[in-house]
Amino acid sequence: MSHIRSRFEKPAADLVVKYTSSLPFDWRLYPFDIRGSIAHARMLARQGIITGEETDEILKGLNAIFKEIEQGSFVFKPEAEDIHMAIEGRLFDIAGEVAGRLHTARSRNDQVATDMRLFVKEAIAEVQAAISALQDSVLTLAEGSVRTVMPGYTHLQPGQPVLFAHHLLAYFEMLKRDTARFEDCFKRADELPLGSGSLAGVAYNIDRHFVAAELGFARVSRNSMDAVSDRDFLIEFTAAAAICMMHLSRLAEELVLWSSAEFGFVEMDDAYATGSSLMPQKKNPDVAELGRGKTGRVYGHLTALLTLMKGLPLTYNRDLQEDKEATFDTVDTLLDSLKVFNGMVGTLKVNTDNMEKAVERGYLLATDIADYLVKKGQPFRSAHGIVAKLVSHAQREGKNFSQLTLEEYSYFSPLFERDVFEVTAASSLAARDVPGGTAPRQVAAALAEARKAVPKKT
Amino acid sequence: MSHIRSRFEKPAADLVVKYTSSLPFDWRLYPFDIRGSIAHARMLARQGIITGEETDEILKGLNAIFKEIEQGSFVFKPEAEDIHMAIEGRLFDIAGEVAGRLHTARSRNDQVATDMRLFVKEAIAEVQAAISALQDSVLTLAEGSVRTVMPGYTHLQPGQPVLFAHHLLAYFEMLKRDTARFEDCFKRADELPLGSGSLAGVAYNIDRHFVAAELGFARVSRNSMDAVSDRDFLIEFTAAAAICMMHLSRLAEELVLWSSAEFGFVEMDDAYATGSSLMPQKKNPDVAELGRGKTGRVYGHLTALLTLMKGLPLTYNRDLQEDKEATFDTVDTLLDSLKVFNGMVGTLKVNTDNMEKAVERGYLLATDIADYLVKKGQPFRSAHGIVAKLVSHAQREGKNFSQLTLEEYSYFSPLFERDVFEVTAASSLAARDVPGGTAPRQVAAALAEARKAVPKKT
Amino acid sequence: MSHIRSRFEKPAADLVVKYTSSLPFDWRLYPFDIRGSIAHARMLARQGIITGEETDEILKGLNAIFKEIEQGSFVFKPEAEDIHMAIEGRLFDIAGEVAGRLHTARSRNDQVATDMRLFVKEAIAEVQAAISALQDSVLTLAEGSVRTVMPGYTHLQPGQPVLFAHHLLAYFEMLKRDTARFEDCFKRADELPLGSGSLAGVAYNIDRHFVAAELGFARVSRNSMDAVSDRDFLIEFTAAAAICMMHLSRLAEELVLWSSAEFGFVEMDDAYATGSSLMPQKKNPDVAELGRGKTGRVYGHLTALLTLMKGLPLTYNRDLQEDKEATFDTVDTLLDSLKVFNGMVGTLKVNTDNMEKAVERGYLLATDIADYLVKKGQPFRSAHGIVAKLVSHAQREGKNFSQLTLEEYSYFSPLFERDVFEVTAASSLAARDVPGGTAPRQVAAALAEARKAVPKKT
Amino acid sequence: MSHIRSRFEKPAADLVVKYTSSLPFDWRLYPFDIRGSIAHARMLARQGIITGEETDEILKGLNAIFKEIEQGSFVFKPEAEDIHMAIEGRLFDIAGEVAGRLHTARSRNDQVATDMRLFVKEAIAEVQAAISALQDSVLTLAEGSVRTVMPGYTHLQPGQPVLFAHHLLAYFEMLKRDTARFEDCFKRADELPLGSGSLAGVAYNIDRHFVAAELGFARVSRNSMDAVSDRDFLIEFTAAAAICMMHLSRLAEELVLWSSAEFGFVEMDDAYATGSSLMPQKKNPDVAELGRGKTGRVYGHLTALLTLMKGLPLTYNRDLQEDKEATFDTVDTLLDSLKVFNGMVGTLKVNTDNMEKAVERGYLLATDIADYLVKKGQPFRSAHGIVAKLVSHAQREGKNFSQLTLEEYSYFSPLFERDVFEVTAASSLAARDVPGGTAPRQVAAALAEARKAVPKKT
Repeated sequence: MSHIRSRFEKPAADLVVKYTSSLPFDWRLYPFDIRGSIAHARMLARQGIITGEETDEILKGLNAIFKEIEQGSFVFKPEAEDIHMAIEGRLFDIAGEVAGRLHTARSRNDQVATDMRLFVKEAIAEVQAAISALQDSVLTLAEGSVRTVMPGYTHLQPGQPVLFAHHLLAYFEMLKRDTARFEDCFKRADELPLGSGSLAGVAYNIDRHFVAAELGFARVSRNSMDAVSDRDFLIEFTAAAAICMMHLSRLAEELVLWSSAEFGFVEMDDAYATGSSLMPQKKNPDVAELGRGKTGRVYGHLTALLTLMKGLPLTYNRDLQEDKEATFDTVDTLLDSLKVFNGMVGTLKVNTDNMEKAVERGYLLATDIADYLVKKGQPFRSAHGIVAKLVSHAQREGKNFSQLTLEEYSYFSPLFERDVFEVTAASSLAARDVPGGTAPRQVAAALAEARKAVPKKT
Repeated sequence: MSHIRSRFEKPAADLVVKYTSSLPFDWRLYPFDIRGSIAHARMLARQGIITGEETDEILKGLNAIFKEIEQGSFVFKPEAEDIHMAIEGRLFDIAGEVAGRLHTARSRNDQVATDMRLFVKEAIAEVQAAISALQDSVLTLAEGSVRTVMPGYTHLQPGQPVLFAHHLLAYFEMLKRDTARFEDCFKRADELPLGSGSLAGVAYNIDRHFVAAELGFARVSRNSMDAVSDRDFLIEFTAAAAICMMHLSRLAEELVLWSSAEFGFVEMDDAYATGSSLMPQKKNPDVAELGRGKTGRVYGHLTALLTLMKGLPLTYNRDLQEDKEATFDTVDTLLDSLKVFNGMVGTLKVNTDNMEKAVERGYLLATDIADYLVKKGQPFRSAHGIVAKLVSHAQREGKNFSQLTLEEYSYFSPLFERDVFEVTAASSLAARDVPGGTAPRQVAAALAEARKAVPKKT
Repeated sequence: MSHIRSRFEKPAADLVVKYTSSLPFDWRLYPFDIRGSIAHARMLARQGIITGEETDEILKGLNAIFKEIEQGSFVFKPEAEDIHMAIEGRLFDIAGEVAGRLHTARSRNDQVATDMRLFVKEAIAEVQAAISALQDSVLTLAEGSVRTVMPGYTHLQPGQPVLFAHHLLAYFEMLKRDTARFEDCFKRADELPLGSGSLAGVAYNIDRHFVAAELGFARVSRNSMDAVSDRDFLIEFTAAAAICMMHLSRLAEELVLWSSAEFGFVEMDDAYATGSSLMPQKKNPDVAELGRGKTGRVYGHLTALLTLMKGLPLTYNRDLQEDKEATFDTVDTLLDSLKVFNGMVGTLKVNTDNMEKAVERGYLLATDIADYLVKKGQPFRSAHGIVAKLVSHAQREGKNFSQLTLEEYSYFSPLFERDVFEVTAASSLAARDVPGGTAPRQVAAALAEARKAVPKKT
Repeated sequence: MSHIRSRFEKPAADLVVKYTSSLPFDWRLYPFDIRGSIAHARMLARQGIITGEETDEILKGLNAIFKEIEQGSFVFKPEAEDIHMAIEGRLFDIAGEVAGRLHTARSRNDQVATDMRLFVKEAIAEVQAAISALQDSVLTLAEGSVRTVMPGYTHLQPGQPVLFAHHLLAYFEMLKRDTARFEDCFKRADELPLGSGSLAGVAYNIDRHFVAAELGFARVSRNSMDAVSDRDFLIEFTAAAAICMMHLSRLAEELVLWSSAEFGFVEMDDAYATGSSLMPQKKNPDVAELGRGKTGRVYGHLTALLTLMKGLPLTYNRDLQEDKEATFDTVDTLLDSLKVFNGMVGTLKVNTDNMEKAVERGYLLATDIADYLVKKGQPFRSAHGIVAKLVSHAQREGKNFSQLTLEEYSYFSPLFERDVFEVTAASSLAARDVPGGTAPRQVAAALAEARKAVPKKT
């Protein structure tokens, strides 16, 4: 029986060992746990709490354990309960009783909080790199199709012509906000809990600032009771991940739509599509669909973490162990999704012709024709009504705007003149020449600005 | 490249293979998948769609594969995508080209829906057995303490005396409803999708009723498009599991409270408690806390599944693959929690003395004293007011009800007579002699009725 | 100050009154509250707990109050805290001190639980009627287009031809399961809590079975502590509603897709569509979109209720007051959505031509051609591969299946003969002649069976 | 029929009007909507798009409408659909046809996005003020009890003595992070969407930067398609609110626990407690309970918003209308909760004696006694084991640490000497003299630092 149970007369029931052990999933904290222990040992030595010799043995042992785990020779014993105990147990094997000194002025409560903060800080860096790579692919695609026009939709109904690049830049903006949210989350995660002990601080002359510096934390936590029971940084991370997955789900939805036979705007590269076991003609956008589905998974983790923390009294409660799998799976799901979407976007084939046909087919210039009337003096609201009637007429006649005669136009308003035929997709685009608008000039400027933020990978 | 990609010029990207493969988790469907394939093969033979010889080879192969997996010698190849392809691939190895016949009149869409329904039906049976076992422990504990009185709480304030057995029976009722909900979920899961093909039905003279009978389904699905895209049964299962976990979370909360130094009502058995790495005096109710925390996990899976299905067009979409991990983890979490709570309740030590002291300490008889006045003719609302003032007086004097004098009582109402001292915890309990009330007679009857539903394990 | 605060020296702070008052939303429980009080009063009289005269005054008062509320003359005073106190306060005004007798043998804890069960039982009846009406519209639409063929999709890619009626029947099945789930929920809601008192039962010789019969409950609750703190029936109702909304969200998604210019399968009736303030040509499927959006709302209520109950100790806690708004809004949202979807489906225009064009355009007969080869002796898996290559060839040539020559077919397999041209959409449909399949014969039978369950409204 | 429906032959069905109208809840956006319209009108005039005279009439009309709404004389017509149309409709009444000019270069899509951003920015300011006020109360309570010792808990088991002020400061830290999260959310909300038109930008020579400056936005949005369909800022706000409510739920849980008869640490002021309609002795912490319950409500809104946005194609879809009620109720719930908790904390009575008794009762000095041994040379892990055995012995003997004899101590380790009796609650506190620890010196410093951030209100 571990020393933790030294007061007890019975070992834990087998089922309890299985139920309470976090080792099957928290083993992946080992680099952070060992890094934390090394910094802690160095500090203890520096403060004269343990001797130089003891420190050497501890550090040698910890380094050996790190290598064992990396090389796959480390034996994770199921009864070890968690990664901290697994590593400490092995340290006893290697270094003997001195291993016990490492736990001086430390509790698993502040230790695990430190590990999770190190983990999340590293995860954020990886996520931000993956977002940046996806942004690069989005920009490359946009740069490669700066002249491609497509219908801009509201309510999935064709609204006004837009540049495909403009549409893509909307996703660039979403991803940019995602990066900023993770950045803000990082700031709050960047705080060292070690030194908070189990809840009240520790009774040793430790140097928390030294440990913070060693581990790269910006500052030390200010209240020990908060420090061991705070999981805000995990919830905030998961909330940011949920929003980012939501953005991917919108992109996924559009790619699925655009890949359909009816839209036909894009085609997935073979490497990013799958077939059907039954229907030989199928080319399915599985990657986009799965990404859309995995959104639910991350939403679920957010629900789980929020539920977990609701109504918990201070300080540490064992419920908190449940923070790990939700966090780990959120990181894995988000990273994998960003990477695979990057590949999918980077290899996408765009069917420019189909996009342009869709623009012609609709009555996408209706707003522009209303604006034409407004510019000739008609109040907007009544101009809108005139064009609505014009569209109804055109639909009945089976004509596009360009196929209507000036007589037909004039029937609906005397303000129509020959120059109404100068209202085209190109004129429509060019007219929206405001910051954030789809005019080619504006989109080119937006692309250039985006490229400054996310330079092209070579 | 698998036949599914026969039209494609490129293999799937490595990242795509990893992202889309469900084999790492759906391997556990193998018993259901093989059972389904055996029933399908037999039906194909019976209908003359494949020959008896072909069938023999297929069945021999499937049985061999089942043994290989059970014995751990089966090699799960990462590129197999899912358990269906992994098994089929191996069948080709073993039986050659005839393996291809097995997929006649079947699609992975109806196959996986069948596997999941078989899985959930089996899971429900296991969950119901685990609920029943926990109910048994609850009843045994109640039967062993039929005379123990404790404070009944509202707002976590002592309200009225109740029997501890009565309190425990509240959990029996909750678990009974859980069983009924799973039963209802089973009814709706008990429907064979096989024969729906990929979405439209199959173009063979198959006998769906034969397959249903072979696999123990009550009926066949009535619409192929619904059958391959319906995941209601998983959401319903997860919703029932979420409610059941909520019940466990309430029990957990109470066990944590009751184990606290301040309440001191119960003590966890050593086998169901843990210590602290830092604080030697601690005996922590970790199992209850973890169970409470795992509630969030199941809530999260419910959120995930509901999100997954929102707004999906018919029929099968790859998003649906995400139904599995949420379901599997829900089953595992619920089963483990029920089992470990069973052990925890079964070994709980009850501190009868502390419960009774808590009853004496409060003013738990206030309602009974108000009722006393009502029976002497005071309208309830004003009786309530009188006793409220009496309590304030007693608190100021630092007295219990039994320590007040008749003079003091009389000061608040002339209706008080000597028999007010006959109002005791015992009289209070006995008075609540209505069906569902805490009177010992009622509780004994409720216990007996409960025992009829859940006989004692020997 | 109300009698409830008779022990306190100060009134509640204004902010507290506002924060804790449920009257702004629970006023709508008044018919149930009054009905419950009438049954309770009758029982008290029957058991001799109050006199016949007292009962008469109470009943007269309650009936007067009911009329006042119905007629809008009842004054809801903010300080009344909840509907129970509002009604009781008014009863004191009308009937004087005898009003106090009504609260004999009753607590707000069992009273509100009774009100909510009455409310939910009535809501379920209304929801089931609304589901049935929507099913009727779905069937009527299906019956009116029994010969219309459309592409059946998986992954939003055209898969195989299906009858539009078959597609619609998938929704009939979903709604049928919804009805069954609400039915099961009703069974568990159908239990009288009254008589449980505040938590322990009541100290009067009451007749709970009489009250249950008066109020139409199937049985009385079996444990008082459970009865006052159980909200399972609300969670279960909300979970069933969430699944039903999910079904509507899928229908909504399809209607939005089908209304798009690219699909063009259906057109919303003007009465169920909206325009744009800016784009005169727009006809937007707003009703479908809003219904899809409102799905999130009901999911949110489910999350709220589950979170609410997590980890609450027995018995009643004030948290439970939060059960109401989530339940009420779930009922309103679901009922409104069912009704408005009913109107939308009932007035939908179907563009049969566009559906049929979409069938021709795809390679929807690929499975049937593979089946053709299988019937000539090719194992399925290799037949699939042959047809996949055939599709690639046809796409390159820009031909449909019917435009390929026999020579082209033969190039891919010698098994192809002239009869391959007999593989058509009609033959494809007819071939899927299995229960649940899309063959016209099967769909007609399914429609007839559905009509038995949901007769046509005249 | 409104101009929006000018192309349609039929009015919307009554049910549709009710289902789609947002006026019942979005009316509260009126100050933001009018402010936005005024800025827009000024800009149109400045750019020469409308004349000075037209502008004057529009501004006069808008100001009149604002007054009408403020004074309650404005008639909200149900058919107005939303607040934008309600105001515009009235403007037509007041100013005639010129009202139509106001909608030049604007769409409801960019208008509502602007309104919601103005709303959220103002809400954040109010929330931050309410957080600050609650922090002030927390600090005042802490400052008033700087010497009060209480048990610090892990797993709800007494762990180590802490200062009550230290415990309170943990909540100060949580609230500080909340403020920072809202700050970050504000930054991202601080962006003007107006000028994005319905999706593509507008075809007028507008000056977006002027409007941004008028309305106090830090910058203009960079992509029109993103701007009209982005609701990140609402999700982020709701996520921050959910975390803040979670913090309140933890405080609530502790206040409920501490108010219980068993803990008896605090007593709610009468103005913040309620009684029972049945049990005259009750004083219930209803405010804390309701706050805990309302956490679920905000979690639910977060689920709703995330679900809403999942998988929506660009740009505006009517689903987005569902963003409002969730947001409004989140703001109201959070603000009310912060305010009422402020009052509750500010009037809390602390039972110092009961806290101190609880410290004596437990074995809270066990860690300190283990540390005592470590300082005498015992490795920590074995010191822990020795003290665990000592605690078991003391419990069997029914003694506190101070009641054990030196002989008894010595039996467990020869390192124990007379100075073990110098280990007291005071020495335990003083020893934890590290940044963030509970030593009085550290707590005083933390309080002083906190006060700098949140000065005392006078």
